[in-house]
Amino acid sequence: MKADLRTYRAFVTHMQSPVTQAELHARHVALRAAMQADDIAALLLTSPADVFYATGFLTRFWESPTRPWFVVLPAAGTPVAIIPAIGAPLMDRTWPFDVHTWDAPDPADDGVSLLTAALQQLVPAQERIGLPMGLETQLRMPLADYARVTEALAPRRFVDATRTVQSVREVKSPAEIEAIRTTCAIADAAFDRVDEIVRSAPRLDAVFRNFQRALLEDGADWVSYVAGAAGQGGYLDVISPATPQPLAQGDVLMLDTGAVRQGYFCDFNRNYAIGTPAPDTVRAHEALWTATERVLSDLKPGHLACDVNRMLSEALARSGHETAGGRLGHGLGLTLTEWPSFTDSDRSVLREGMVLTLEPTAMIDETRMLVHEENIVLRADGAELLSKRAPRALPVIDL
Amino acid sequence: MKADLRTYRAFVTHMQSPVTQAELHARHVALRAAMQADDIAALLLTSPADVFYATGFLTRFWESPTRPWFVVLPAAGTPVAIIPAIGAPLMDRTWPFDVHTWDAPDPADDGVSLLTAALQQLVPAQERIGLPMGLETQLRMPLADYARVTEALAPRRFVDATRTVQSVREVKSPAEIEAIRTTCAIADAAFDRVDEIVRSAPRLDAVFRNFQRALLEDGADWVSYVAGAAGQGGYLDVISPATPQPLAQGDVLMLDTGAVRQGYFCDFNRNYAIGTPAPDTVRAHEALWTATERVLSDLKPGHLACDVNRMLSEALARSGHETAGGRLGHGLGLTLTEWPSFTDSDRSVLREGMVLTLEPTAMIDETRMLVHEENIVLRADGAELLSKRAPRALPVIDL
Repeated sequence: MKADLRTYRAFVTHMQSPVTQAELHARHVALRAAMQADDIAALLLTSPADVFYATGFLTRFWESPTRPWFVVLPAAGTPVAIIPAIGAPLMDRTWPFDVHTWDAPDPADDGVSLLTAALQQLVPAQERIGLPMGLETQLRMPLADYARVTEALAPRRFVDATRTVQSVREVKSPAEIEAIRTTCAIADAAFDRVDEIVRSAPRLDAVFRNFQRALLEDGADWVSYVAGAAGQGGYLDVISPATPQPLAQGDVLMLDTGAVRQGYFCDFNRNYAIGTPAPDTVRAHEALWTATERVLSDLKPGHLACDVNRMLSEALARSGHETAGGRLGHGLGLTLTEWPSFTDSDRSVLREGMVLTLEPTAMIDETRMLVHEENIVLRADGAELLSKRAPRALPVIDL
Repeated sequence: MKADLRTYRAFVTHMQSPVTQAELHARHVALRAAMQADDIAALLLTSPADVFYATGFLTRFWESPTRPWFVVLPAAGTPVAIIPAIGAPLMDRTWPFDVHTWDAPDPADDGVSLLTAALQQLVPAQERIGLPMGLETQLRMPLADYARVTEALAPRRFVDATRTVQSVREVKSPAEIEAIRTTCAIADAAFDRVDEIVRSAPRLDAVFRNFQRALLEDGADWVSYVAGAAGQGGYLDVISPATPQPLAQGDVLMLDTGAVRQGYFCDFNRNYAIGTPAPDTVRAHEALWTATERVLSDLKPGHLACDVNRMLSEALARSGHETAGGRLGHGLGLTLTEWPSFTDSDRSVLREGMVLTLEPTAMIDETRMLVHEENIVLRADGAELLSKRAPRALPVIDL
């Protein structure tokens, strides 16, 4: 017999997830209001975060690039999930979707005809189908299959729904904020143990490995991101994997993590001096802390993303520091990083309920900088910290 | 001052990576031969695995969906990396690429004009640019930006380069095979400790968490995938996150992992009976082990992917079991799962040097199955195990 996955209900213990039925209902209402405003008859979602947002479907199975997953939210009526059969038991537990499955991967038709049929039925011929196509989005299906679907659906056409989705997702619900706060607390606890982690095995790769173990011990479901660096008085490359480099007196160690709990990320870092830090390093850390303090006290809904860049850059300039360029913070939640970006050109309006990272950089000289990062939620009256505030003075670890 | 990332060379301790300069050179030669055969003037790569394969650029920073990354391999001459400035120090350490950077994310132009200019210069106007568009591929850049690049490059056009890339990547080099073997050995060591992991905290979420800790202790750089299930005498849903479900006498616990070491994955699972297993569960495990044994002894280069499906299905049928449908194994290496798929319709030829998983399923009844998975490399004379062979008899854990 083949598995009748759709009737499978055994062993279902609901997680204490922030994504309740009421939460999903509210999300659908908000997405549909945005769709109406943007003249979109149905929304097609393909990315892990968008699918999780619209359905509560949370799995690490996205790590396999083999299969596409499709969720269609029509303007009215039952949402449709068109997914590989292996995902049916999990999808059936999330919301009363209309679930269509196929035996993926199928080289001849990997969900294409099912997706086409669903959209033909749900979307009148002259109407528009929204699909995120803009900054920070990716279509998670083969491009050749997208071309096939596009052709089959004409005269219906796909239009960019980046803002349609982002304008809803970027304001976090109370349950989402608490979920992110929980993940931040897990990272806080692990960061508090870095002193013992470093002293027990003072090599960069061991520190990365043992810091991840600490995050799991402290409650992370999994650790999607750990990066960092260690260098004499500062560092510059913050995205490389760890090397077996032994930590040395005079190094600054930086660890940055995106741990995950119930699908929600934290994203902040901490710096540690190995032995007494040099004066310019101390000054840079103090400058980053002070610049962050300024935003924590001054930020209000209605500010633009570029205002945060300006506040941080100006505060750093007062202490004689320039930034490393790029963005100085960003959104956070269902992925490690979300829009907007605190660059000098991003004019996104910051709204109450947004969860954000403040991530200023300070150059010490041409080859060294420090990065400092905190997570906040923007309330009506200003910023509320979700991460435990970093100490003003760079903490020292004595080997 | 802004960071001069391009001149940064401090703190570089080369990892003992399988991706040496000689390895990269051989990959470029092989990719260029495939490009020539497919009449492709340049290859555009955007996915983490393709970029890692062509450059050795390994980072967890892909976890942030914000920024696109582009690598262009022309038919001749220096390959070009067009990447966010934050990645320049790492990319500069990989290969003498021509590296162009921009201050990403830039809402007005997120690498589009740099990519367009590079392709205009490298590709004559009537020629074809290869881009993976087929099964198991995704374009990792915003769709709207891809449309802009496509328009600007006309009359040059993008063509599907899925097989161009896959035909090279699917045959692993000796260094890659050893890297995967190392990752498999890490998972073997962690699986050997599941008895103590379960008995110390017999709850599914604790087991998932502590199994990940064990993988890190045993040498994983990070753990990209852990899934599993536990149910009375079997399970069906194998992709859900762990719940706080206590393990109980009569459960079968299954753990499946894609740990990562130096960028290379393992992907195999193990089953454990909690207390004495029921006879039908014992029979299903024995059937899976025996079916796998048949492939281990009979598989040869030249077999098709669907032959493996047939061998496994026939062996299982002899013991009265059907599979759960879908695929019964797949490729493995730079991602958790790679092509081909052991379905009944995949006619890919299995080649010497392919690293594969054998992953048969056996239904016990309508709501229960078992999955069994091993990792192998296909040699000229047959299969060589990379994972330590699972025990023939289902191991028992006494709580």
